[in-house]
Amino acid sequence: MPAVSSVLVDGVAHLVTNDPALGPGPLGEVPDAAVVVEAGRVAWCGPRTRAPAADVRVDAAGRCLIPGFVDSHSHVVFAGDRSREFGDRMSGRPYEAGGIRTTVAATRAASDTDLLGTATRLLREARAQGTTTLEIKSGYGLSTADEQRCLRAAARLTDETTFLGAHVVPPEYDGDTDGYVDLVTGGMLEACAPHARWIDVFCERGAFDEHQARRVLRAGRDRGLMPRVHGNQLGPGPGVRLAVAEGAASVDHCTHLSDDDVAALAGSASGGGPATVATLLPGVDFSTRQPYPDARALLDAGAPVALATDCNPGSCFTSSMALCIALAVREMRMSPEEALRAATAGGAAALRRDDVGHLAVGARADMVLLEAPNPVYLAYRPGVPQVAAVWKDGELVAGRP
Amino acid sequence: MPAVSSVLVDGVAHLVTNDPALGPGPLGEVPDAAVVVEAGRVAWCGPRTRAPAADVRVDAAGRCLIPGFVDSHSHVVFAGDRSREFGDRMSGRPYEAGGIRTTVAATRAASDTDLLGTATRLLREARAQGTTTLEIKSGYGLSTADEQRCLRAAARLTDETTFLGAHVVPPEYDGDTDGYVDLVTGGMLEACAPHARWIDVFCERGAFDEHQARRVLRAGRDRGLMPRVHGNQLGPGPGVRLAVAEGAASVDHCTHLSDDDVAALAGSASGGGPATVATLLPGVDFSTRQPYPDARALLDAGAPVALATDCNPGSCFTSSMALCIALAVREMRMSPEEALRAATAGGAAALRRDDVGHLAVGARADMVLLEAPNPVYLAYRPGVPQVAAVWKDGELVAGRP
Ligand SMILES: [Zn+2]
Ligand SMILES: [Zn+2]
Repeated sequence: MPAVSSVLVDGVAHLVTNDPALGPGPLGEVPDAAVVVEAGRVAWCGPRTRAPAADVRVDAAGRCLIPGFVDSHSHVVFAGDRSREFGDRMSGRPYEAGGIRTTVAATRAASDTDLLGTATRLLREARAQGTTTLEIKSGYGLSTADEQRCLRAAARLTDETTFLGAHVVPPEYDGDTDGYVDLVTGGMLEACAPHARWIDVFCERGAFDEHQARRVLRAGRDRGLMPRVHGNQLGPGPGVRLAVAEGAASVDHCTHLSDDDVAALAGSASGGGPATVATLLPGVDFSTRQPYPDARALLDAGAPVALATDCNPGSCFTSSMALCIALAVREMRMSPEEALRAATAGGAAALRRDDVGHLAVGARADMVLLEAPNPVYLAYRPGVPQVAAVWKDGELVAGRP
Repeated sequence: MPAVSSVLVDGVAHLVTNDPALGPGPLGEVPDAAVVVEAGRVAWCGPRTRAPAADVRVDAAGRCLIPGFVDSHSHVVFAGDRSREFGDRMSGRPYEAGGIRTTVAATRAASDTDLLGTATRLLREARAQGTTTLEIKSGYGLSTADEQRCLRAAARLTDETTFLGAHVVPPEYDGDTDGYVDLVTGGMLEACAPHARWIDVFCERGAFDEHQARRVLRAGRDRGLMPRVHGNQLGPGPGVRLAVAEGAASVDHCTHLSDDDVAALAGSASGGGPATVATLLPGVDFSTRQPYPDARALLDAGAPVALATDCNPGSCFTSSMALCIALAVREMRMSPEEALRAATAGGAAALRRDDVGHLAVGARADMVLLEAPNPVYLAYRPGVPQVAAVWKDGELVAGRP
């Protein structure tokens, strides 16, 4: 809605604000609501009978309006196709163990245009499904030039760019992880930092150990990047506690958590400063047939939880935040309301953003009109496309109301 | 494509024919293929370099073409909303046990227009997701007039209509199941048979026992309806064996199977006549947090298997056959190829149809162009809408190529 000065979205059966001051429950739901958008921000929201006038009126016609999804974890800059590997793995057929190295080789061989093209297509696909903020990581280049190329592509598409040179050790550093960490924290960081907001590391047995991971995070912080961590995906480990100790915004996966890990995450939320969010990626557990994280332990302990897709060609090639919500409800016993909050306000917290993930006055007008009367439908109707329209900064970017 | 006499769909990276004579694997896949459609049927298919000329050319541009999904089990004629019940059930919150009776009361109170409106909306939604054949059951009316109303609505939308008066015993027959079976096999059948192709019964503890179920199936057959059965959903029981003994086209759910059940289903496939298909409904097991059926035991024994949605407001409100495929792969260890075959040719067998579910010459041109290079993507990218275009009888009915 660029050419008009204010827009009233009227006839909203349920408005999800994520602001407990505005309505009951974790979603701050307002029934029979309206929203006024001005200059890309929420200028007013509340009961429709009290809505102020606006230049243009959009009729939600009894449907539900929610904040756009904040997908705080993706790897959409890559090249190559691993669908056959997926099919073989899920069917128990033997397959060539190329795995992530297949993607690295294809990414290095791809042109900048091709990398940007694939990432753009996936961003548009995510947006059409209601994602209005998408974090994008590097991590399939694994050389100074290729990591920089990947981040340049990511930076064309989002402000939330993450330097993940420490994703996996590339073939040319086989057996010399410390040597690779020297590169990641040295010349590669130097080349990549101008294009990234975040530094990330895969802290896991077989990837980078606690000491190496700490080196990566601190080097990044010294170059102005804020830390986030891949941790505790494949087994128990130091990732979660390292993330909390380093003040990371998020630790992602959290499939294998000890009681101490849960306590550390909950403790980070009660310390006064910004918390370390536990970002759960149930699409990965779905597509790799792994167990799901114990979301209830986290929520019941008061730890902040986000949901994200981890969209990537190897372990989880979904861009559907709605599927993550359905899986969170089915498999992790989150309520539909907790799951939607984690996919919006939770993702915003994991990116330390206060302008997205909610729809109180002043928030960015990143909004999704659902083809459904209430937000429970996201889990109630798994797999069904239910996004009618998507606005980013008040502008219609997908669908139509 | 109504106004032209032949259409060539060219540039198909993978064509799924489901005809083992045309290509390898359970899907009869032809790489680099083309299809010619004439008068709503497949007139030619094969390697694109050998394709004959046609009046119009559609470019698949390296994407995958599959037969339209055959969803052989749905309950989309209903009224009322049970999303809150779903949310409460999945969250472990206590809820009013209205359950199916809520839907029955709302359906009886709804106008014909409203019933047809909801069913039409769901049919269109299913079609946009690639379903070109949709079976629709009655079963929320449970009185002679209301069952007939539901079937009239269903018959406006599909040829595959199923009389399911024996879904559950309505409140007014509490404690008198045999009395209700008298009605179902008497006046209700008389009123409904002209609008239905199939007779169905919910053979389960708490619904209809083996004797009652047999009465229903035989009465239906005497009125020209072909039998199908809901069985073995909530526990072990006689449903599967009854279905095989009565020559039912399908027995649906099959969540709890004994070795004898599996053997009976496999035996039905080797008897020369048409088999009783085991129709698996993984969306129900997903949305009710129940175990999944043992698809591998069925497939490995040679039993015919179909996948369907069971789209209904209580136990599974998805219309997504792609989700059923993803669940079949993740949870039931079907290969992506087995799952797609079950969702197309399997559904056709469960409806005893030889004109749909495959794309050999002579088949109906019910086709789905996927936004993907090969059919593995349906499971590889769970939750992501990947249907670019849908043709029914050669006519474009959703999306655009
Ligand atoms: Zn990741
Ligand atoms: Zn059913």
